[in-house]
Amino acid sequence: MNARVYVSMKPTVLDPQGQTICSALNGLGHKEVLAVRQGKYFELKISDGISHEQAVKTLEEIARDVLSNGVIEDYRVEIFD
Amino acid sequence: MNARVYVSMKPTVLDPQGQTICSALNGLGHKEVLAVRQGKYFELKISDGISHEQAVKTLEEIARDVLSNGVIEDYRVEIFD
Repeated sequence: MNARVYVSMKPTVLDPQGQTICSALNGLGHKEVLAVRQGKYFELKISDGISHEQAVKTLEEIARDVLSNGVIEDYRVEIFD
Repeated sequence: MNARVYVSMKPTVLDPQGQTICSALNGLGHKEVLAVRQGKYFELKISDGISHEQAVKTLEEIARDVLSNGVIEDYRVEIFD
């Protein structure tokens, strides 16, 4: 079973890295880019021995407790095949 | 218009950061996690003044030339609304 966890800054948190990328793109002539925010994602391979429900529960736990910082970041979990 | 660009290491490239996360998760008791690979993603807000085709072309260019390193990384572009 494969899963992806996406972690991004909360909308209220400043993202200087994204702002820098946006300025760089505008400077390179890509004026159509209005804003950029950077996040990270994780591709996880999960043992097929557990059920889909158990996988969802485990991944929520991993995303909340290990992969993201709840104070400034949001996360999203996606499970496929 | 909003778009997301996902950048990840090519499958043949070692990802020590992902391996460390995998070991940490196993150590925390999440034995069902078999492998982890880390990537990054970018949320871009694109001006509505350009067509969908033009946006695809521009985003491919941005992803290839600016956001990823073609030697070791793959990218994927997603456009929505």
